[in-house]
Amino acid sequence: MSRISGRTPSQLRTVRIERRFTKHAEGSVLVCFGDTQVLCTASVEERGPAWKKDGGWVTAEYGMLPRATHTRSKREAASGKQSGRTQEIQRLIGRSLRACVDLDALPGLTITIDCDVLQADGGTRTAAITGGYVALVDAIRAMQARKLIKKDPLHGQIAAISVGIVKGTPVLDLDYNEDSGCECDMNVVMNEAGQFIEVQGTAEGHAFRREELDQLLDLATLGIRELMEAQRQALGV
Amino acid sequence: MSRISGRTPSQLRTVRIERRFTKHAEGSVLVCFGDTQVLCTASVEERGPAWKKDGGWVTAEYGMLPRATHTRSKREAASGKQSGRTQEIQRLIGRSLRACVDLDALPGLTITIDCDVLQADGGTRTAAITGGYVALVDAIRAMQARKLIKKDPLHGQIAAISVGIVKGTPVLDLDYNEDSGCECDMNVVMNEAGQFIEVQGTAEGHAFRREELDQLLDLATLGIRELMEAQRQALGV
Amino acid sequence: MSRISGRTPSQLRTVRIERRFTKHAEGSVLVCFGDTQVLCTASVEERGPAWKKDGGWVTAEYGMLPRATHTRSKREAASGKQSGRTQEIQRLIGRSLRACVDLDALPGLTITIDCDVLQADGGTRTAAITGGYVALVDAIRAMQARKLIKKDPLHGQIAAISVGIVKGTPVLDLDYNEDSGCECDMNVVMNEAGQFIEVQGTAEGHAFRREELDQLLDLATLGIRELMEAQRQALGV
Amino acid sequence: MSRISGRTPSQLRTVRIERRFTKHAEGSVLVCFGDTQVLCTASVEERGPAWKKDGGWVTAEYGMLPRATHTRSKREAASGKQSGRTQEIQRLIGRSLRACVDLDALPGLTITIDCDVLQADGGTRTAAITGGYVALVDAIRAMQARKLIKKDPLHGQIAAISVGIVKGTPVLDLDYNEDSGCECDMNVVMNEAGQFIEVQGTAEGHAFRREELDQLLDLATLGIRELMEAQRQALGV
Amino acid sequence: MSRISGRTPSQLRTVRIERRFTKHAEGSVLVCFGDTQVLCTASVEERGPAWKKDGGWVTAEYGMLPRATHTRSKREAASGKQSGRTQEIQRLIGRSLRACVDLDALPGLTITIDCDVLQADGGTRTAAITGGYVALVDAIRAMQARKLIKKDPLHGQIAAISVGIVKGTPVLDLDYNEDSGCECDMNVVMNEAGQFIEVQGTAEGHAFRREELDQLLDLATLGIRELMEAQRQALGV
Amino acid sequence: MSRISGRTPSQLRTVRIERRFTKHAEGSVLVCFGDTQVLCTASVEERGPAWKKDGGWVTAEYGMLPRATHTRSKREAASGKQSGRTQEIQRLIGRSLRACVDLDALPGLTITIDCDVLQADGGTRTAAITGGYVALVDAIRAMQARKLIKKDPLHGQIAAISVGIVKGTPVLDLDYNEDSGCECDMNVVMNEAGQFIEVQGTAEGHAFRREELDQLLDLATLGIRELMEAQRQALGV
Repeated sequence: MSRISGRTPSQLRTVRIERRFTKHAEGSVLVCFGDTQVLCTASVEERGPAWKKDGGWVTAEYGMLPRATHTRSKREAASGKQSGRTQEIQRLIGRSLRACVDLDALPGLTITIDCDVLQADGGTRTAAITGGYVALVDAIRAMQARKLIKKDPLHGQIAAISVGIVKGTPVLDLDYNEDSGCECDMNVVMNEAGQFIEVQGTAEGHAFRREELDQLLDLATLGIRELMEAQRQALGV
Repeated sequence: MSRISGRTPSQLRTVRIERRFTKHAEGSVLVCFGDTQVLCTASVEERGPAWKKDGGWVTAEYGMLPRATHTRSKREAASGKQSGRTQEIQRLIGRSLRACVDLDALPGLTITIDCDVLQADGGTRTAAITGGYVALVDAIRAMQARKLIKKDPLHGQIAAISVGIVKGTPVLDLDYNEDSGCECDMNVVMNEAGQFIEVQGTAEGHAFRREELDQLLDLATLGIRELMEAQRQALGV
Repeated sequence: MSRISGRTPSQLRTVRIERRFTKHAEGSVLVCFGDTQVLCTASVEERGPAWKKDGGWVTAEYGMLPRATHTRSKREAASGKQSGRTQEIQRLIGRSLRACVDLDALPGLTITIDCDVLQADGGTRTAAITGGYVALVDAIRAMQARKLIKKDPLHGQIAAISVGIVKGTPVLDLDYNEDSGCECDMNVVMNEAGQFIEVQGTAEGHAFRREELDQLLDLATLGIRELMEAQRQALGV
Repeated sequence: MSRISGRTPSQLRTVRIERRFTKHAEGSVLVCFGDTQVLCTASVEERGPAWKKDGGWVTAEYGMLPRATHTRSKREAASGKQSGRTQEIQRLIGRSLRACVDLDALPGLTITIDCDVLQADGGTRTAAITGGYVALVDAIRAMQARKLIKKDPLHGQIAAISVGIVKGTPVLDLDYNEDSGCECDMNVVMNEAGQFIEVQGTAEGHAFRREELDQLLDLATLGIRELMEAQRQALGV
Repeated sequence: MSRISGRTPSQLRTVRIERRFTKHAEGSVLVCFGDTQVLCTASVEERGPAWKKDGGWVTAEYGMLPRATHTRSKREAASGKQSGRTQEIQRLIGRSLRACVDLDALPGLTITIDCDVLQADGGTRTAAITGGYVALVDAIRAMQARKLIKKDPLHGQIAAISVGIVKGTPVLDLDYNEDSGCECDMNVVMNEAGQFIEVQGTAEGHAFRREELDQLLDLATLGIRELMEAQRQALGV
Repeated sequence: MSRISGRTPSQLRTVRIERRFTKHAEGSVLVCFGDTQVLCTASVEERGPAWKKDGGWVTAEYGMLPRATHTRSKREAASGKQSGRTQEIQRLIGRSLRACVDLDALPGLTITIDCDVLQADGGTRTAAITGGYVALVDAIRAMQARKLIKKDPLHGQIAAISVGIVKGTPVLDLDYNEDSGCECDMNVVMNEAGQFIEVQGTAEGHAFRREELDQLLDLATLGIRELMEAQRQALGV
């Protein structure tokens, strides 16, 4: 089988991670998975979450510019609420990134990861998590430099990728065309130890068999290993 | 290991599926997984979805009575919006149930599955899917009796269960205590062929290893087989 | 004249008051006036109202499950606001129940009565007040047992019933068919001394004469006496 | 007993009904019950209600200027929703005025009565109904002049007044001081035949006995007779 | 050239400024520019703005009664939000009036100027600023009388007028007909020294040349001088 | 006088206009005025405005990424509404760009200009208009290529700049530091004939005299001439 893009089933799109993309945020990363471009900023605020006495918080918000997509979608600020899809994605990003942070080491502090899609071509949530991690690291390093925190709250590395079955073949990192035509797809978030943080598989058209699920998890594991290498190169560690 | 409830790791809570619980809806099912009680009604409306030219639609809405939980939560109608959690759950229920329906066989028709939690003790979304399926079948049978549709749109059976790792042990069908203290948990939706419709695994505290994931999927497969038997008994098929 | 249901003009529907219907709330009552079923829970919170320096508060919220009615109505949480009807009803329930409570004896405490209609067949607001009273008593008794309050804030008994003129005849406790076809109707809330707490009579079709109003109030007085007996039996007092 | 204002128990405040107060509306009436001033406009639109196939509709909206009251209240347009009180009042005004209109004689037409309180001193809803009736008549006469309707839809006269028990004495037309200190109060809407359209009695402090209710209805009947005379004088009929 | 109204190009409409129009507000002014009628109230509240540590605040809100205009417009409280136009106008009024107040001399105090249009015939925002100034002065004098403030925060006089080019001729104080047909128009806010506080010129149809802009500013200067005289007469200073 | 940035009073910041910045929109322009970066996309939709029978429409929406600014601001989509400032700006952008378009030549078509601020350093609205114009031209050219329109609707060139008085000196193109400390500022929109489309001058601190206003307009005229040259170079015309 050949993919329209010419990629092999286990091949990622070209990944680009550009730090310090804008100047105000403590962490600011433009992440590109092929034509998908997401601007991830990490903002530090000296206030803890209202509903939590001790420790700090890491949270995420997600948005798409109205014309990030093929046809213009309504601006959520104008329609007066965030869609269910938006909320689902930003909850996923927040949970995923919290999995590598010791919240008790952020007393009275909140880090917000804003992930805004400038251009969409499939996989925006996985790009957001992968780029958001780099912005988070930059923000934590800035907090350490400003002596806002005493010990390093970071205890792992997080990246995410999508996998799916397209025309019967399991493939890695679906672009928009593959995503809209696929039989089932899965978003996988992992840490540097190869363990799973989130697994979200969905089949509307074609239910997937156990061995298909296994193949998809194998592909995801491969892809995430590459993404983590790209994150480390971007961070220079 | 022993569970506080006395159940074995692979033991479901007592499952009860009561049809015709209220009188107006085409399908009305009270489903109980132990102390979790969800009222699922299926309502037929003779209007297709606005954004879709042909065929019909199956959708779901989810709600919790304010005092279904240990402490009262704010009524979503009063606060003016559905939370991200609510939207995430109702999108999951809708996608899961659409997986067993041929939407083209429902021209100009919409079936809405309302899942309202009367009492919560963990696993409300999986109970909602499992009970919602039975309400959906009743509504489809009612539509056939009223000659609203020509052919049977139903082409499968759907049920759902939660699994998770509690104190190091993979267990089936977590109750509230287990759920709030677990290291990671997963909601699994399957069809009657043992294939996966949805897999949603989350680890905030403890990332799960591949073999743990495999054990959890095995447990879920067992549990869903039992739930499907209970669905068939309730439906008398 | 005969009513479709076979009831005499002054006959209530079968009344059922079931306490401890769900397990979390301090008071939880399922009240049925015939096919009208309302779940009333009373929740105690250790916070006073923000706008009131001393004493506590008793308030009510009202909701209908979307398919409690003949045709599905839109979920208020999804449409983003409570209808005027909902607000009118919950304000009525709150005012009515506050009429039997000494708020000064609830310092720093709020009791919320949630009335959720599982099945509607006319008279949901009067059922809600009648059942809500029982839930309120249970909650107050629980507060006394937990030593949250020093003296008994309860100083009366409250129940409510609807009356109306159907095809020229004054009748008690209208069901949905009678209610939608009636010439005028009235909701009456009374205390155990036979005094009026609320009287709300409405005539869109046929204005009512003074002697009709008098007959309706007589009928209501009879009906409420029976309801109070049912409340006392349920409470075992 | 003497009232602070010097009025006798059965004495109305000075009533003023000024037609053509603003120039754009088909009916525009400033109604004053003492210091309570409400601007009532009736607007004719050539569209029927969306939810009703035949005939027309008469509806009402109610608002208070933020500083109509002793202390400034939040502007409802700014807070983003109408309060429960506002909705309750505008529903009451609409129902009351529809009671004198044959909606079938208004095919494809909607009349909206806007009642905006410029200055509040108790009794705003009863002033709104009483003045709204006059604006409604003017609008109907304008529709007849413009040949929008074939037959006269008006079949009665409507006015409203408040009554209540203040320091043990039943009194008519409560001003703000009396209203905020009264033991119970009632709003009564009647037609020209002395029949009741709406009766809304409320007792938070002191439940009212049957004979008190009777006295209040007697007072209301007297007051409404006077108001109707004032309406007829204003209309020159 | 002659204006439909018979006015000369540099002639204002009849201006009327009536103080103490309603009784509760610290300042209450009905201002009329011809048929445009705006009720401006100034309300003093003993709370400072939440986002500002020291000093006080002066702010404005703007609204139109639904039938202030030729055809009824939707009530903003009912549609659930203020339009962009409304927000733009109330921000303009607030900024303009703050230009003559020393906010540091209002510690812990907020003055809200509510401008509600009873009848609209063009120029509502300039009438609101001109009348709002008089209400503000009255409120400040009331605060001084009540010893709420130590020194006089007022340091100037503010008025506003519209100018525009109608059929090629620059004219002063456009009414609705002129405004809706004009080629470009400008709202000008000035102080008593003839300096500019706000200049807002807009050309959708016909861009204006520099010399036209100069002529419009000359006209505005003339008009504002007259309005300031009217303000002083109303205030008796 | 010297500006902190080293610029002379009449010197613009470095202007950069980059076309085809994202791939989906008919026009997509990144415009930079120094550190201010705004992404302007023009989207063509084949639907006319609902409220207008003939011709088409050009409209604009404006947004800021939450961390475009020094401190993070709340996401408008999350808070549920666009601020007054946002609405004021997007109305200004829309009006300004409509001034160079013949709407009758766009029958049944809508062009939406989305202006999203990636990084803010003062002057975002003037950058948005200047960049939005280029995106609009690209969209119109695309419509011509796709034969969506018969004749060229474009009849002018539009650009915008801010001017203000900083420490007593009139300066061109204020950056954030200058803007937040300035005595008064003005946004000026002009066309290629040097005529004014919009003039919006505001003085909260220091009212500006007529000769200051004249100097500011002179500066703006100079600046806009340069911006128009940059637009033409970017467009290659």
